[in-house]
Amino acid sequence: MASKTEERREQLRQKLIAIAESRIANDGYAALTARDVAGEAGCALGAIYNIFKDMDALVTAVNARTLAGLEAAVARAFSDEGVRRDPKRGLVTLGLTYFHFVTAHPKLWSAIFELGFRAGKELPQWQIDEHVRLIGHIVKPLRVLLPGASEQRLDLLARSLFSAVHGIVSLGLARRFMAVPPAEIAAQITFIVEAFCDGVVARGARRP
Amino acid sequence: MASKTEERREQLRQKLIAIAESRIANDGYAALTARDVAGEAGCALGAIYNIFKDMDALVTAVNARTLAGLEAAVARAFSDEGVRRDPKRGLVTLGLTYFHFVTAHPKLWSAIFELGFRAGKELPQWQIDEHVRLIGHIVKPLRVLLPGASEQRLDLLARSLFSAVHGIVSLGLARRFMAVPPAEIAAQITFIVEAFCDGVVARGARRP
Repeated sequence: MASKTEERREQLRQKLIAIAESRIANDGYAALTARDVAGEAGCALGAIYNIFKDMDALVTAVNARTLAGLEAAVARAFSDEGVRRDPKRGLVTLGLTYFHFVTAHPKLWSAIFELGFRAGKELPQWQIDEHVRLIGHIVKPLRVLLPGASEQRLDLLARSLFSAVHGIVSLGLARRFMAVPPAEIAAQITFIVEAFCDGVVARGARRP
Repeated sequence: MASKTEERREQLRQKLIAIAESRIANDGYAALTARDVAGEAGCALGAIYNIFKDMDALVTAVNARTLAGLEAAVARAFSDEGVRRDPKRGLVTLGLTYFHFVTAHPKLWSAIFELGFRAGKELPQWQIDEHVRLIGHIVKPLRVLLPGASEQRLDLLARSLFSAVHGIVSLGLARRFMAVPPAEIAAQITFIVEAFCDGVVARGARRP
């Protein structure tokens, strides 16, 4: 059984994560300071560092919640039987789910990439596990489309498809460079992923 | 005829751009300072601001050179008759040309995006023109694949295809999130773009 002290510690931990999450969601990762978080939590600055090694560790905990949120959105999308059964529809749905998730949480989503760039260090194991789970969702419909493909090839294709959709979403929402206009992103994801699926099937038929 | 003063001014301008370019290429955009550039050019700090409104304007001039370099690489790739004639090969070649260009000049390439994010302002007209030219290179083979498509649709598809390849390249080279391993990027660009082309043709055949 957890002692009273451990319980309080866990409560403060959850409170600090919730505060950091709402601050990142509103003002972005770059604006987050330990002083502000401690002020809102009503605790001493040192109390944060008793629980988290550094601010990166606190942001990492927020990022874990964000990734879990994306996984929950994916699971909801796949609760539809029709989506689950049709690999093409499944892949398009995954792309659109990603797009809608990033649109709803743009600053929380950016924090995942910004922390990685700044920290420039190895990812924690839980995050690698989370990526493997997310890739698994893309691999499943790909395996139906490409029944003969090795697991390694399916993993690579899943990463490529994710990266392609991510490119359309991230350039589009940031309106950077040769971006797709925001109002067209969903239609373009649908077209690109559907054409890719048809192409994979056509290639399979041509070279059995 | 240009006066002696104008000539010297233009020489210093070119020298400052060359110094900034080599510094960004080596150390990245974030490390660039006016002090270092002036020191290397052997001029006063104020001389930079006589020529460029601010450091962003100097970086914009460097970015113009980088974009012109990409366009030259694309033109070289299309000097091959076989590439020019085969739309699928043309699109794959464009994707690989982009990948190789970014691989060869990663920090100069990042500067284009970083300046945009930091400045958060409207793009200058020459840069919009440059984007239109680059999109034109992607539209040409797409028009052969989709003869009935409107120019607006071809423009959107070109932006989507570029964004997709950019996503694979940028996540892959940065080794971020569910990235494609660097050694596999070229093969994955080839597969994704080819499957997309086959899909576009298959869709066209199915729905004439």
